[in-house]
Amino acid sequence: MPVISRKGQAMPESPIRKLVPFAEEAKERGVDVIHLNIGQPDIKTPQVALDAVRNNDIEVLSYSRTEGTDLYRKKVAAYYAGHQVNITHKDIIVTTGGSEALSFVMGSIADAGDEVIIPEPFYANYNGFAVAAGIKVVPIVSRIEDNFALPPIEEFEKCIGPRTRAILICNPGNPTGYLYKKEEIQKLAALVKKHDLFLVADEVYREFAYDGLRHYSILQEPGLEEHSIVVDSVSKRYSMCGARIGFLVTRNRSVINTAMKFAQARLSPPTYAQIASEAALETPQSYFDEVIEEYTERRNVLVKELSKIEGIRVARPQGAFYCMVELPVEDADDFAQWLLEKFELDGQTVMVAPAGGFYATEGLGRNQIRIAYVLEKNRLIRAVAILKEALKRYPSA
Amino acid sequence: MPVISRKGQAMPESPIRKLVPFAEEAKERGVDVIHLNIGQPDIKTPQVALDAVRNNDIEVLSYSRTEGTDLYRKKVAAYYAGHQVNITHKDIIVTTGGSEALSFVMGSIADAGDEVIIPEPFYANYNGFAVAAGIKVVPIVSRIEDNFALPPIEEFEKCIGPRTRAILICNPGNPTGYLYKKEEIQKLAALVKKHDLFLVADEVYREFAYDGLRHYSILQEPGLEEHSIVVDSVSKRYSMCGARIGFLVTRNRSVINTAMKFAQARLSPPTYAQIASEAALETPQSYFDEVIEEYTERRNVLVKELSKIEGIRVARPQGAFYCMVELPVEDADDFAQWLLEKFELDGQTVMVAPAGGFYATEGLGRNQIRIAYVLEKNRLIRAVAILKEALKRYPSA
Repeated sequence: MPVISRKGQAMPESPIRKLVPFAEEAKERGVDVIHLNIGQPDIKTPQVALDAVRNNDIEVLSYSRTEGTDLYRKKVAAYYAGHQVNITHKDIIVTTGGSEALSFVMGSIADAGDEVIIPEPFYANYNGFAVAAGIKVVPIVSRIEDNFALPPIEEFEKCIGPRTRAILICNPGNPTGYLYKKEEIQKLAALVKKHDLFLVADEVYREFAYDGLRHYSILQEPGLEEHSIVVDSVSKRYSMCGARIGFLVTRNRSVINTAMKFAQARLSPPTYAQIASEAALETPQSYFDEVIEEYTERRNVLVKELSKIEGIRVARPQGAFYCMVELPVEDADDFAQWLLEKFELDGQTVMVAPAGGFYATEGLGRNQIRIAYVLEKNRLIRAVAILKEALKRYPSA
Repeated sequence: MPVISRKGQAMPESPIRKLVPFAEEAKERGVDVIHLNIGQPDIKTPQVALDAVRNNDIEVLSYSRTEGTDLYRKKVAAYYAGHQVNITHKDIIVTTGGSEALSFVMGSIADAGDEVIIPEPFYANYNGFAVAAGIKVVPIVSRIEDNFALPPIEEFEKCIGPRTRAILICNPGNPTGYLYKKEEIQKLAALVKKHDLFLVADEVYREFAYDGLRHYSILQEPGLEEHSIVVDSVSKRYSMCGARIGFLVTRNRSVINTAMKFAQARLSPPTYAQIASEAALETPQSYFDEVIEEYTERRNVLVKELSKIEGIRVARPQGAFYCMVELPVEDADDFAQWLLEKFELDGQTVMVAPAGGFYATEGLGRNQIRIAYVLEKNRLIRAVAILKEALKRYPSA
């Protein structure tokens, strides 16, 4: 038998993947499974984007430009200008989702054996892209007690060695919901400049900032031009995860030129999705205002209801649409499976994402879960009630 | 300044890329540049596929399943059954173009430093994906004198060493247009079984077989179930390169399970493109019959016209829509640039793909070009006339 690569064997499975068969079985038993586990917004995609695709007049669905059309990238640059980021279309490569942007970035800045520092917990797929590229993730623990604020900058500096190539952050954070303050970004900026590293920021949740707070992009930070690389995506912004359009944004010409070679190898990003994404830029501000209001209310309801449960600790998120919760259980993996396999309340149960998969350090986050508040308020309230009852009945609690 | 990865520096540029600015300048001078350099078919995308996207009723453009929907994959399995390949939907992962399938395959079967044997000339982007994964391409020369038939199998066996993981072929071939005979596939099959290797076949041009010949898939070869992996795509089949939908197809469960982990990291293939691709499966046979007839005529005209030029050698293609041509020049790169920079015939010139980029062995193919016959006949005839006149006038000829 021919053999699978070591890298392929080492590739992590999605932490939720193991639970999927149990969710399916529960559904087959007639149980209504409330999904708190996925980051798929229920918000409608802007009509202008949907219409653009329905009204397309393509006759030959040909390759688009590798980096996206000039026109689209110019419009994206204008979008950034509206967010206090001054870039040109030449600083942008259109990618197949933020995922591909991340993969191009990793390929462009790190070789096998190189290291990237990431505050944990972090988006689990960072691990997948790192393993695929043979890159070592060096985690730095951020704590639920601090709402997952940036760990002390000294912690980062201690981890910088000869193979360190970059610090990667997600801002606002998935799974933490933490929105980095300007001062935190500035500390990171000073550090990467001092050590000649890249600062990579996944800013796909940029718009989702609550409590009147404003997102501060690493691209706004003066003097960081050669160091900052942003991974972006239309997926969450316009509730169009299925489009698969993202961006790699940097003013560093060497990074753009290198990433372009990776981009050329895969030819071009998907055409229909670019039509939708270009039109989505016309989405009126009222859409975002309503979305932010909706998510703020959901966040408030969720945190309020969760806080009523004894023995629970909740990180108060100020961005994105995730909430990390520490449960009075030993093993959230086991609890999540039990919820699907053994528990129901009046025909309903919940599916949560155990947080272990968001940590690189073995054993951390074992009693934590991530809740995505992409459900309407009443269903969220019901989900928390189910969780509360489940914790009472859970035998290992 | 932070540094670019060695891998990023080593990533090859598209061989045509260098010519693009010269083509743009020529167009700015008002010259009509006839593009013989790109594999973008001019054939219309099937109406049924275009209509499906125009009539979609999506309200939330959500993630699709990582591996594509069961329904779509079942339909794809039925398509394969129509091509004498018996597989189930579980043997298929829907990818973002054949490019992504290739990248998943490489990641699943080879680690950095491992080797993949590929007959050259080959599709230039194989190099890109190999460099990205740190895989060493071991080329075996196929010759224009033999129409690029499979080199003697002993040549392959000589190259197999402890790091060899796979043999990769493109059938029908880009850039060669060669269609491997059943006996050639069987020789490769015996060899990979003997040495426990994978046989990977890029079969995206499957339908484009001329002169009454039938494509023989590695998936049809009995006993090769654990060894054969097919990379497929809707791009050329339905003239929908911009969709970015492809497939990884194998009966080897370990490969599917491993590739799924790479697939999960990038979440899902593009949704609109899947709608188009699923509908495209309803394309009537008459569409393909017409397309094959059209390409056959183009091939005939092209080869006939080219053969009239003195000092030229043409490989007679029996598949795909590429034709390799040996020119009476020393440096096809220089000639291709000269065509755009210095030459015109009554306001027209041609852009060709110099073949050096399709060879891994330094110095091979320097006097060869690839012509893609994706233009209508009269324009092809005109293009060859321009080429003929250019060769007369080319100062270094």
